[in-house]
Amino acid sequence: MGTTQLESVQEPKYWHLKTVLSEALDSDFAVGEILPNERDLAARFGVARATLRQALEQLELEGRLQRRRGVGTTVAPPRVGVAVAAAQHDWAGGDSDEAWQPVECTTGKAPVAVAAMLDGAAGEDVHVVRRIRVTRGQSVAAELLYVPRSSVPELSAIDAPSGPARARSVLRELHRLGLDGQDRSVELGSARADDAKELDRLPGAPVLVVTTRYFAVSGTAAVSVATYRADTCRLTFGDSGALEISHEEQERQAS
Amino acid sequence: MGTTQLESVQEPKYWHLKTVLSEALDSDFAVGEILPNERDLAARFGVARATLRQALEQLELEGRLQRRRGVGTTVAPPRVGVAVAAAQHDWAGGDSDEAWQPVECTTGKAPVAVAAMLDGAAGEDVHVVRRIRVTRGQSVAAELLYVPRSSVPELSAIDAPSGPARARSVLRELHRLGLDGQDRSVELGSARADDAKELDRLPGAPVLVVTTRYFAVSGTAAVSVATYRADTCRLTFGDSGALEISHEEQERQAS
Repeated sequence: MGTTQLESVQEPKYWHLKTVLSEALDSDFAVGEILPNERDLAARFGVARATLRQALEQLELEGRLQRRRGVGTTVAPPRVGVAVAAAQHDWAGGDSDEAWQPVECTTGKAPVAVAAMLDGAAGEDVHVVRRIRVTRGQSVAAELLYVPRSSVPELSAIDAPSGPARARSVLRELHRLGLDGQDRSVELGSARADDAKELDRLPGAPVLVVTTRYFAVSGTAAVSVATYRADTCRLTFGDSGALEISHEEQERQAS
Repeated sequence: MGTTQLESVQEPKYWHLKTVLSEALDSDFAVGEILPNERDLAARFGVARATLRQALEQLELEGRLQRRRGVGTTVAPPRVGVAVAAAQHDWAGGDSDEAWQPVECTTGKAPVAVAAMLDGAAGEDVHVVRRIRVTRGQSVAAELLYVPRSSVPELSAIDAPSGPARARSVLRELHRLGLDGQDRSVELGSARADDAKELDRLPGAPVLVVTTRYFAVSGTAAVSVATYRADTCRLTFGDSGALEISHEEQERQAS
């Protein structure tokens, strides 16, 4: 396990090719440019097509390339820094800059893993609010927010039984509740078909799954499971709002 | 873009198979168990091997399966919650529970992206501390910590020119400096050959790359680029230390 410092590390062929390709992307290609087809690329770099394909997959994982049906492989723009933080606390979303758009609200059982996080509310029906996060005109995340009925007891059943209006009612009640804190986790996942559609990806595409527990005095008030595009997003976390500057923005400020 | 709620979502065949397989993993297999070979599995579920392979890839992305050379495909244990937070502030690592193990320290130029984050220190030589994070006896992350010379001016060149001792000296000086705050980002990446080796993965395996900027009064004092295993780790973030309980621990407490 790497205790001998002098031991050389064996790099597979596709890995070396990836490095070479990465440099070629910097020097010979512009963002958005379509790459030559696999046969031509393989010939240009003197490698087998299988090796080329592996290298392209790596570059896609790293966000350097985008592969889209019907378009081909293009050079990706730098990933967008997306702040994952207290912003979600503003449930009411009165602000016109609000990036989370409520889409739907249904009622049903929470998945087992979510129910386990909702403490006492396991088994109980929950409100399921679906929201889409839009940044710079692009859908970057799709969220399911699970809110136990007991968290929003004053929600009126009358005015809107479902749809965005219902979603906004649930968020408003959550806002009134006042939250004490939150914790969250980030892990790798694959896009469910419905999320993939919203995010303009194929089902199964790698995504970053952000699970957030919102706490109220009484316990866990809500659980959010948000699926972020892993190809275009870099999730940012800050100590405080002021510090939360994405690298990209920092570079822009510096130039 | 999913505005029509009634529109049905087209699920590819491998996606459906993934769901079926996932349920089979829950009911028919134990953690650590080796799956039947691809031919047998494809026959059992009545699908083409290409379809099966795609479904297995999805389950691997989701952390349900592990594929290891020479072993085969095994049922993965639940991901381990790894706290990504203020813990790293304790640079001195006096605590015996300290999970970050200093491995090496060299001096050189920071990569372009890191140099851009180090404000004024661009172009300057930096100390590069390599650390491995061990959780429950497993290497979960490999880190390169870039510390500009100007951040640790009192570092003595005499006592240890390189190696873990040198790494500890740099960390000690960083600790003395006192830090004001930090921000970080999380994105998808692929494991470099050296990191892959430390983490017992193949080069190019999907990883979660956590980039942290540490701030001192004078500006950015250090930048850490840590590569976490995406297959076994779930990164956890908390409002406060007290709240930072991984789901797994919570489940254990609840049962």
